[in-house]
Amino acid sequence: MCEANAYLKKGEEQELFMEQVDVIEPFEEGLRLVDIFGRQKLIKAKIKDMNLLNHRITLVQLPEK
Amino acid sequence: MCEANAYLKKGEEQELFMEQVDVIEPFEEGLRLVDIFGRQKLIKAKIKDMNLLNHRITLVQLPEK
Repeated sequence: MCEANAYLKKGEEQELFMEQVDVIEPFEEGLRLVDIFGRQKLIKAKIKDMNLLNHRITLVQLPEK
Repeated sequence: MCEANAYLKKGEEQELFMEQVDVIEPFEEGLRLVDIFGRQKLIKAKIKDMNLLNHRITLVQLPEK
């Protein structure tokens, strides 16, 4: 399976935000992530980078307005 | 392998921009894409959405300033 894990960058650290992510799409001012089981999470963030062969996506939080 | 194909959204159409993409990361005002063979392409675009089980990433071009 080709899902990836989404990590949220916090300063120099990265914490696991969601595992086995299939879909990422824009949602309001942030992103909607859906995993392979259809569970979803919303986050006010953007995609920083990804490495698909490593199954890794890095998100960064967007600043509050 | 878990690479994906990157499509560029142009109006209602999407054209194939790069196949077998492994890495996507920020580069200057746009993105740098690297395929599984290490070839790279630069594009002034952002990631719109992705569907990893379908191996599909959609990019949208950024407006010229």
